[in-house]
Amino acid sequence: MDSQPKGGRFDGILGVMGALEVLRTLNDNGTDPERPIIIVDWTNEEGTRFAPAMAGSGVWTGRLGKEWVYGRVDIHGKGFGEELERIGYKGKLPAKKWPVHAYYEYHIEQGSVLEREKKPIGAPKGIVCVHWYDIYVEGTANQVGPTPMEERNDALCAAAEMILKVNGLPAKMGGNMVATVGEIHNSPNSRNIIPDEVHFTVDIRSWNDELALRAWEDLKADFEGIAARWGCPMRMEETWRVGHTPFEDRLVRRVMDIAAELGYPCHSMVSGAGHDASYMSQVAPTAMIFVPSIGGRSHVEVENTRWEDCEAGANVLLHGILQSALEL
Amino acid sequence: MDSQPKGGRFDGILGVMGALEVLRTLNDNGTDPERPIIIVDWTNEEGTRFAPAMAGSGVWTGRLGKEWVYGRVDIHGKGFGEELERIGYKGKLPAKKWPVHAYYEYHIEQGSVLEREKKPIGAPKGIVCVHWYDIYVEGTANQVGPTPMEERNDALCAAAEMILKVNGLPAKMGGNMVATVGEIHNSPNSRNIIPDEVHFTVDIRSWNDELALRAWEDLKADFEGIAARWGCPMRMEETWRVGHTPFEDRLVRRVMDIAAELGYPCHSMVSGAGHDASYMSQVAPTAMIFVPSIGGRSHVEVENTRWEDCEAGANVLLHGILQSALEL
Repeated sequence: MDSQPKGGRFDGILGVMGALEVLRTLNDNGTDPERPIIIVDWTNEEGTRFAPAMAGSGVWTGRLGKEWVYGRVDIHGKGFGEELERIGYKGKLPAKKWPVHAYYEYHIEQGSVLEREKKPIGAPKGIVCVHWYDIYVEGTANQVGPTPMEERNDALCAAAEMILKVNGLPAKMGGNMVATVGEIHNSPNSRNIIPDEVHFTVDIRSWNDELALRAWEDLKADFEGIAARWGCPMRMEETWRVGHTPFEDRLVRRVMDIAAELGYPCHSMVSGAGHDASYMSQVAPTAMIFVPSIGGRSHVEVENTRWEDCEAGANVLLHGILQSALEL
Repeated sequence: MDSQPKGGRFDGILGVMGALEVLRTLNDNGTDPERPIIIVDWTNEEGTRFAPAMAGSGVWTGRLGKEWVYGRVDIHGKGFGEELERIGYKGKLPAKKWPVHAYYEYHIEQGSVLEREKKPIGAPKGIVCVHWYDIYVEGTANQVGPTPMEERNDALCAAAEMILKVNGLPAKMGGNMVATVGEIHNSPNSRNIIPDEVHFTVDIRSWNDELALRAWEDLKADFEGIAARWGCPMRMEETWRVGHTPFEDRLVRRVMDIAAELGYPCHSMVSGAGHDASYMSQVAPTAMIFVPSIGGRSHVEVENTRWEDCEAGANVLLHGILQSALEL
């Protein structure tokens, strides 16, 4: 490829294209590895349509039940398994782990740390914990005009207060944490009816699992107070929790050493986003290689990474895989 | 009909069924009115799919442009005119007013005042003003994990603060007012992406037009401060405004007198909901007849009114229409 593409979904594609380039380079050079090298493109890493995320690696490593994952439904009630079947992606091979000598995942950073540090390579020592919750707030629907303010149970107002509590949580708890409400569904969602059902999500992440759990306990107490004050019953679901994941020291150091040998400034950091490396690190030595996201932007149309940085990351991946593949 | 139906959409149906019953009764009794009696079932009174509300009466009375109303689109981009065409409801007769001697509208109260007052008939002296606004808040989309709290522009958080400001407006401004956010659209609405576009509605109602306008000015200033604080640019649209509507004293008194003659306790009140009577009162003597909503609930499945109250209202409507139709 000659020209820099105009942004969009590097996330995922970079890993696969980088790995293909590495294998081509090894083949072109007639390399004879001691171990087989496999490229894997995991199913449903994002979890956006079918929660939870990292479903493919979760099943393969035995951390998630296959049938449970197949049974997950999207907001239209469609099942993950039946949709895989429909598009011809429901394979016949058992999704079951086998011994892996080393697992590398090449990925965009998705944050702005590398750009700020002006370094083309990031070597994450691991991934923060990711805790997902679903909150359902129930109000009393009514025509807005004739219903006095003091007789209302407005589920959207209760949810609005809760959303602000989520946003304020990291400052309140201290430590390295982010907390977000990304998704909200309001019902009946009509401008002249008081909302009677609001569903929203909570995402809490930290390098410190115990801090994230304490944050949730704190938040729950706040939510209960808010729900009572607005007269809006509430239901809370603990949808998904994955603890913080330290990668293998030896492999992380290898990434940093290779970057140094190749002359690429490298930054030791933590990954704020979940990755399949999270599950893989529980069954195999694992490391990741990060390259900068322009403007720290990701999961948006303008998501992009400079070609020089893509190349730098692929070169580090090449030598990492080569060293691991030549090990006996 | 022998048995009380199990709730649902009295709003609108009551008016049409009540009017049909009145005409049947007048016919059965061989009444010979001096003036023609017409039942009208106005198109798009709610305005829920196609804003604004009361589109049919607005066009008929000349308060809204017909082509402008035809051009209104729903959230899927479908035009009101083309949808009327598609379902065969786009008539050929010109939607243009002619002289009307008296206009009565029979409706459920949609609030809890009559139930609280234990009176089967309400005689509204008019309708509060209804002001509709649409707010668009722009944030910066990003993956939630790697984006520190202090580098965010979260459109949903800004909107949450604004929603609470709307709810607090009536208490702040004093006077008889309600203010509501009933509708919200969040984009991209994914649990691991910071929201970058939130659209929500504002509905302000009061018997005092000037107070409602001052409330909006106050709210705008608050919104601008909130938008600036979250680093989220904002756009505000003044979608629809209809002033408070006093009905004709003579006709309102007639409704109260008839109720008294028939032995129905009657309450003098204000309508918090908009009605086609609002536009009609600008071109003809107008009055409304309210009957209680069970539990003050409306615009929900459980919306209902007791049969005895439906009958009481229809009897008041009968005598009102009879008196007006016999006038020379």
